[in-house]
Amino acid sequence: MHQENDREKNRREEMEKRQVRNEDLQKPFHFADRLNEHIKKKGSAICVGLDPRMKQIPSFIKEKHFGHYKNAMVAAAESIIEFNKGIIDAVADLVPIVKPQIAFYEMYGSEGVRAFEETCWYARDKGVLTIADTKRGDIGSTAEAYAKAFLGQVDLPDSSGGSQEVFSFDCDAITVSPYLGWDGIKPFVDQCRRFGKGLFILVKTSNPSSGDLQDLKVEEVGSVYELMAQYVESWGADDVGESGYSYVGPVVGATYPEQLEKLRGLMPNSIFLVPGYGAQGGTAEDVAKVFDSNGLGAIINSSRGIIFAWENSDTFTEKDYAAAARAATVEMAKDLRGE
Amino acid sequence: MHQENDREKNRREEMEKRQVRNEDLQKPFHFADRLNEHIKKKGSAICVGLDPRMKQIPSFIKEKHFGHYKNAMVAAAESIIEFNKGIIDAVADLVPIVKPQIAFYEMYGSEGVRAFEETCWYARDKGVLTIADTKRGDIGSTAEAYAKAFLGQVDLPDSSGGSQEVFSFDCDAITVSPYLGWDGIKPFVDQCRRFGKGLFILVKTSNPSSGDLQDLKVEEVGSVYELMAQYVESWGADDVGESGYSYVGPVVGATYPEQLEKLRGLMPNSIFLVPGYGAQGGTAEDVAKVFDSNGLGAIINSSRGIIFAWENSDTFTEKDYAAAARAATVEMAKDLRGE
Repeated sequence: MHQENDREKNRREEMEKRQVRNEDLQKPFHFADRLNEHIKKKGSAICVGLDPRMKQIPSFIKEKHFGHYKNAMVAAAESIIEFNKGIIDAVADLVPIVKPQIAFYEMYGSEGVRAFEETCWYARDKGVLTIADTKRGDIGSTAEAYAKAFLGQVDLPDSSGGSQEVFSFDCDAITVSPYLGWDGIKPFVDQCRRFGKGLFILVKTSNPSSGDLQDLKVEEVGSVYELMAQYVESWGADDVGESGYSYVGPVVGATYPEQLEKLRGLMPNSIFLVPGYGAQGGTAEDVAKVFDSNGLGAIINSSRGIIFAWENSDTFTEKDYAAAARAATVEMAKDLRGE
Repeated sequence: MHQENDREKNRREEMEKRQVRNEDLQKPFHFADRLNEHIKKKGSAICVGLDPRMKQIPSFIKEKHFGHYKNAMVAAAESIIEFNKGIIDAVADLVPIVKPQIAFYEMYGSEGVRAFEETCWYARDKGVLTIADTKRGDIGSTAEAYAKAFLGQVDLPDSSGGSQEVFSFDCDAITVSPYLGWDGIKPFVDQCRRFGKGLFILVKTSNPSSGDLQDLKVEEVGSVYELMAQYVESWGADDVGESGYSYVGPVVGATYPEQLEKLRGLMPNSIFLVPGYGAQGGTAEDVAKVFDSNGLGAIINSSRGIIFAWENSDTFTEKDYAAAARAATVEMAKDLRGE
């Protein structure tokens, strides 16, 4: 039998603990209803993008971990975990949801992916929902594996030669690419329905070249992105919660406000995930029309503008990076309210 | 300072060793030239899909590891690593390249991703190229992170307060989704050019609903997939190697042989990654026209038909899973040669 050291033992116990979920944190069951409750409770529809670029993580954090671990990837992971916990602690009462982008974790290999896991678990403990920003998309059997990995349960042998189902990443929602059509989407819908999770499908993305494919004019129908919007609406139509929203929604960039407005009309029952506010150029005015009269219907993402707010601040130094993030979140909430 | 146990020490030393690359394994530098050399040397254009579904991994492997590690995710990862090493040992002299699909590893969290890393490193040691089948796609800054994670180098602080660049997954190639257009592709092309790596972009995928988006008729142009093919040809046109092929190629399913033939004509300088042979229904006849007169121009993927060949065999039991994989590979090579 492998002799675990303290670190390995702690990690295994943490993972076992995660299998017994705090059911209060899962209510309401329907993802859209749960997200909307969080939006109302926190008083904002802000999604904080946890994109921990190593160069911008404060030096005092990096010095501590790189001085403590010989394995540089472990030190990188521990730096990311500490940084993210500081951000989550600072904003947990102000925002309903956070969105770690897995690329910035995969940079540091499997250790980086461990930092992604621990970030998601910590967010849940602090009463904040999580979107795994992975933009996954593949054929049916592979999509099923992704959906089980990030949203559902995976099978493992148990000690009696049978099988057990355990939670893996157990995020609340995930971003998905629609290039492969319904086969690549259905497995995610199945896991969402079974475990009360959510799905955000790329429709009109925030980047400059999003038009290369998304703006192509399809004969007799309209643009690709308009057709994708119709697909998203139909794919979620069977699964509308009590708040009137489905757990299937689109990703639509703040940087294309005209299309955002048009798409709002095409997907009345979807919660929009809106990237592009702040660092990419989108403004509060650009996104105003995406909300319903109750302030619901969308979550607006900001990453660098919040988590690295200290860099552009006269008031805060890197030691106060978390307080700076809180201040930037308060500012963004005011901005979105039109104050 | 954290006191490493043997396992942690071995892992760190392995990662440090990986930073000093065996330059012979990187030749030729241009990915298409290197792949074509491997195809010629091994005598086949077979790509083995390493999709290690836990239920189908032989029990004798699982019993060993689940009896040895208290942490079930660690046991799952070790089972996958042992299984994959057996497959690679059995086929390394017969195939140029393997393609682990990361979803099946992400199912087991960060431990599963460690199994992905160790599989890729082992394949390289055995003289086999690797495609990270991740189908990544995101905006520029995020795509850059993905490209550095899987193909290039990532930045880490060094002990003198400066920065060092280290290899992370260091795969030979990656699959990418084109939904976001050029912004999501360019960062991958940059890493390919810098590190002699390759890129396979989804064009016409093998699954039943691939037509939902890919077959849409774009006004005055043709279908979305034909337009994507033109993009792929142009994105790779500047980077053709001595063998006449670019390091940018398409993913085109064997299950759509008519489109495969049409696309061959649209992308004369691309190496095609062709999934769908075998378990999904594609045949040798379906893919015959994708090869040039030298037998180059494509790699044909098979996953379940090779790695779980023992399940459909009268000759091999699960204990001989690796020998069964070798036999299936030999059969597939004959089939592709039209014998």
